[in-house]
Amino acid sequence: MKPEHLDTPAAVIDMARMQKNIARMQAQANMLGVAFRPHVKTSKCLDVVRAQLVAGAHGITVSTLKEAEAFFAAGVEDILYAVGIAPAKLPRALALRRQGCALKLVVDNPTAAAAIAAFGEQHGEIFEVWIEVDTDGHRSGITPEQDTLLEVGRILHENGVMVGGVMTHAGSSYELRDAAALTALAAQERAGCVRAAERLRAAGIACPAVSVGSTPTALAAAQLEGVTELRAGVYVFFDLVMHNVGVCALDDIALSVLTTVIGHQAEKGWAILDAGWMAMSRDRGTSKQAHDFGYGQPCLLNGTPLSGYLVSGANQEHGILSSTRDNAPDEDIAQRFPIGMKLRILPNHACATGAQFPEYHAVSPDGETAVWRRFHGW
Amino acid sequence: MKPEHLDTPAAVIDMARMQKNIARMQAQANMLGVAFRPHVKTSKCLDVVRAQLVAGAHGITVSTLKEAEAFFAAGVEDILYAVGIAPAKLPRALALRRQGCALKLVVDNPTAAAAIAAFGEQHGEIFEVWIEVDTDGHRSGITPEQDTLLEVGRILHENGVMVGGVMTHAGSSYELRDAAALTALAAQERAGCVRAAERLRAAGIACPAVSVGSTPTALAAAQLEGVTELRAGVYVFFDLVMHNVGVCALDDIALSVLTTVIGHQAEKGWAILDAGWMAMSRDRGTSKQAHDFGYGQPCLLNGTPLSGYLVSGANQEHGILSSTRDNAPDEDIAQRFPIGMKLRILPNHACATGAQFPEYHAVSPDGETAVWRRFHGW
Repeated sequence: MKPEHLDTPAAVIDMARMQKNIARMQAQANMLGVAFRPHVKTSKCLDVVRAQLVAGAHGITVSTLKEAEAFFAAGVEDILYAVGIAPAKLPRALALRRQGCALKLVVDNPTAAAAIAAFGEQHGEIFEVWIEVDTDGHRSGITPEQDTLLEVGRILHENGVMVGGVMTHAGSSYELRDAAALTALAAQERAGCVRAAERLRAAGIACPAVSVGSTPTALAAAQLEGVTELRAGVYVFFDLVMHNVGVCALDDIALSVLTTVIGHQAEKGWAILDAGWMAMSRDRGTSKQAHDFGYGQPCLLNGTPLSGYLVSGANQEHGILSSTRDNAPDEDIAQRFPIGMKLRILPNHACATGAQFPEYHAVSPDGETAVWRRFHGW
Repeated sequence: MKPEHLDTPAAVIDMARMQKNIARMQAQANMLGVAFRPHVKTSKCLDVVRAQLVAGAHGITVSTLKEAEAFFAAGVEDILYAVGIAPAKLPRALALRRQGCALKLVVDNPTAAAAIAAFGEQHGEIFEVWIEVDTDGHRSGITPEQDTLLEVGRILHENGVMVGGVMTHAGSSYELRDAAALTALAAQERAGCVRAAERLRAAGIACPAVSVGSTPTALAAAQLEGVTELRAGVYVFFDLVMHNVGVCALDDIALSVLTTVIGHQAEKGWAILDAGWMAMSRDRGTSKQAHDFGYGQPCLLNGTPLSGYLVSGANQEHGILSSTRDNAPDEDIAQRFPIGMKLRILPNHACATGAQFPEYHAVSPDGETAVWRRFHGW
């Protein structure tokens, strides 16, 4: 089926753009001399992940145990579950390991470390745990110089748990928009994570893996000495937030929402679309950036951005397309965007928009579409 | 299973609160002497809709054809699809009607009206269409005095389409927080919709149904003379936005997200939760209201709100719980909210939060839980 015949709203992947993005990040990891472990929380889609693995990725990163279970069932064995484990989730982690999954857990505190050790001992399982390092203060993790780092390392190491590595995510990179600042943050991310690994090793704890990354720092890193692997997620599709951060062009964005014009409020200069926030998601990441794209950037069906227009508002199943000139409504809106016209909307945040859909429609270079399932939930 | 044993994050429905909300809205419709047609886009869940029908609802309102198909397959026949129809969706609407579904479509423009008439004639189907009326300028619809109203009515009426009624939704009620203003808006919603029906009838077009509603105006309406039915959706769960509008108390909110504490950043006064924006949704509806609840109001497992705390930030799978006192981090955060502790978070917007989950866990008054499936997509 051609994309113009799809029912709307639909989540459309431009396969050529996606493949270009995958090749670009893999080449970056290769250039930096590290393995690449994509974060699959962005797509939650086996077809996308297969393309990443074929391009050279080693293992995957997941944000939920459901992702780990689904991708392991599909044959992916090397899986980093990159959210601090809640002790009550250990039975699910154990079940995966017992089936042969090389699942790595993450902790950043002594309580969870002790819980893993106790649970592992109770069930005769040697869990592999990576310690989360905080290199930019934006969320979780232990800072490299904290005593807690060695405390957690020792609780694991001395109680039959394998300390497989350290990992960090400089998520504050999303707030930057300057290449030099990104390169500096990438250097800080690398240095902090390597320092944490060195401290653990000096304490007699092996710590083989040193894992860093976010899409912006991964692309901005000048060198990754001491690092063993890079992680990134949203790069596979990119989005308007990443465009504003400066790491992709509008025509690199591989995910868009196909929509239909269903009405007008001509005197206000509005065209009404059948893609509201249920389709675009409520993510308004660009609202805090230099260029606010509203609920998304409209494009023609062939992907050409309609400069001067944006999705300025959204209800659950209604989007409002209007001119970016606030005080000058487009008087020709109904002629320019007639009822039934189909458009493609580039999203603020690909991870959030993708999650609104049970499937993607992947458009190949010959213009045909394939249905690629995705899953949601925990 | 008891709710404290559920894996987290989970979407939990307090059945007693839900039943109270259902009874309250049905009593309001009964008092006003109109039928009640709940908007099921909030729950997208057959168990919830059955409870609404048992309580006295007549038919349902849907926001997507997928909802119409799913609820019709489950035995609900009287369905209003309350989003302006895109002509390309008419084959799906026809299929539903051919199976016996009393599906009502909505239009607000001559182009879509003509498309329905032509498609109906081509397939020998008498579609039922309701004309969308704009009574508060917030989205779509034709204002009651516009010439377009009669133009659309005539295109339908004179071309073999049944004009089943008029409908309006005063969605701007979400922006109010004053009982008198809500009652005034409910009066405006009623008057505008009744006026549109009268103009159609004066032009010889029957227009039997006059349908109005939004949760706030439905609860605030003093009288609905000339109206035949009321619609409302989010009332079934309520949420923090509705609390700020003033139409429910915190302990009326029937939907919450069960979460587990997975870490701390003690010096910042943060507890890290395993419910991020993927669980809560990106909806920050209260950010524009008098009381900003961040990403949600934390409560104890028994439902008691933890005043003085909120979910102040969220990444995809991480929530940040902190004190509402911005400049005074809670130094005891790790003791107060230890690793593994479970909490319930009241959401900004029940429609958006529910959509993040493949199922609800409904907790009955005896403390047992049942899995209630919900669907998503279009």
